[in-house]
Amino acid sequence: MIMEKIELTNRLRKLVASLDGAKERREEGLFVAEGTKCVLDTLRHFKCRYLFATKDWQLRNASEIKGFDVIDATRADMERMSHLSTAPQVLAVYEIPQYEMSKREFEENLTLLLDKIQDPGNLGTIIRVADWFGIRQIVCSPDTVDVFNPKVVQSTMGAISRVKVIYADLVELLDAERGVPCYGTFLDGDNMYDSELDGFGFIVMGNEGQGISPHVGKYVDRRIRIPSYPAGVPTSESLNVGMATAITVGEFRRRAYK
Amino acid sequence: MIMEKIELTNRLRKLVASLDGAKERREEGLFVAEGTKCVLDTLRHFKCRYLFATKDWQLRNASEIKGFDVIDATRADMERMSHLSTAPQVLAVYEIPQYEMSKREFEENLTLLLDKIQDPGNLGTIIRVADWFGIRQIVCSPDTVDVFNPKVVQSTMGAISRVKVIYADLVELLDAERGVPCYGTFLDGDNMYDSELDGFGFIVMGNEGQGISPHVGKYVDRRIRIPSYPAGVPTSESLNVGMATAITVGEFRRRAYK
Repeated sequence: MIMEKIELTNRLRKLVASLDGAKERREEGLFVAEGTKCVLDTLRHFKCRYLFATKDWQLRNASEIKGFDVIDATRADMERMSHLSTAPQVLAVYEIPQYEMSKREFEENLTLLLDKIQDPGNLGTIIRVADWFGIRQIVCSPDTVDVFNPKVVQSTMGAISRVKVIYADLVELLDAERGVPCYGTFLDGDNMYDSELDGFGFIVMGNEGQGISPHVGKYVDRRIRIPSYPAGVPTSESLNVGMATAITVGEFRRRAYK
Repeated sequence: MIMEKIELTNRLRKLVASLDGAKERREEGLFVAEGTKCVLDTLRHFKCRYLFATKDWQLRNASEIKGFDVIDATRADMERMSHLSTAPQVLAVYEIPQYEMSKREFEENLTLLLDKIQDPGNLGTIIRVADWFGIRQIVCSPDTVDVFNPKVVQSTMGAISRVKVIYADLVELLDAERGVPCYGTFLDGDNMYDSELDGFGFIVMGNEGQGISPHVGKYVDRRIRIPSYPAGVPTSESLNVGMATAITVGEFRRRAYK
């Protein structure tokens, strides 16, 4: 039997180009990864619907893509389909995974809850921080930026393959899981370095401008603060949410090393 | 004597619009801050050459701008001059400050050395981290992105008023200051949490892709590492440089609180 190679039709080019829209991604159940590093980091972790590459690229990466049907694409095709400012030589279209929340993870590990994070770069770096520090599950409020936005996928540098990102109503979740400790950073919280930090539970991180929303905040039973230094000297009103996540999760893990 | 109000000429509009170029900023010795928060955070910290605002804005912010000569600008003028995607109602043009390096600061406080940081957003968040943790001086290699790039100014959220950012050859500096402890993060460095961290000295942070360059790295006498968690589990190859700076500086300051 001879397998016929899939042809790159205009319909297909258009479909791929449309996937920078959240609505289009949801309707098609597909998302895009671009560029050598990003594609090779994700190729064996998501179900690949289409893999496009220039012939040159295929020759140079033959061993990495063994077993995949690659669709030949010219540089002009890539420019048409890409969401980057410089078109890549390889582009993968994956099925959006359907993850289930793991209750066990809530009780045995840290879980990040993101309350309306808006900036794609912030979400990307938070996923990298989670990956670095062994957090396997992130729950985002439905109004958080879409993790399958091409900019977020790109900025996770492959970490999106190892961290499950789920969208759900945070209030419902917190209401159902009242037994799980819930941490959140507030400017008037307790000094984090003097607080007890367990190795499991929720850590809520809030919106870039408004912080944690009141209806989520009332479930936070451990209000903590990253103290500025030295005490009493005027400083920025707040840290960027990515930085705050890095410092907070880093401190939880430092304790765990002891 | 009646002071004549400065008129918004076409030459002036063009000058302001040109200041998103590094060359133009250097030649004119000027840079731009835009938007209410950014301008009010910086207005009393830099020498203001021009302050443009719509009449509406001036009415709403009369007390904050008392003593400043404000040039009336229409929304169309703002669109012409602005470097943001949405034109602001206020825009300030400041003289680029000429800072001197403080040797005393090297010996009494932490100083960040940035080795070829390329991303404006990363530089901006690093300045915010420095401000939060009481670092008053940052020395950047000449090939680091320009701190007076409008995107960097914007992303510092006012922290640029409180942290001196200086451009200088890092090798020359490190060679002249061999007595000052020099920390740097490397993937094969010693676990930071088991290392001695003093309250003063240099902390070198490297380029987004290549890390610390070899000619700078040889001056790093305290090679440290942020350990991933749990040990031995595959993870991202590295943290984003902004995150790494936040976690590292945070750990230095945590020790100082004790």
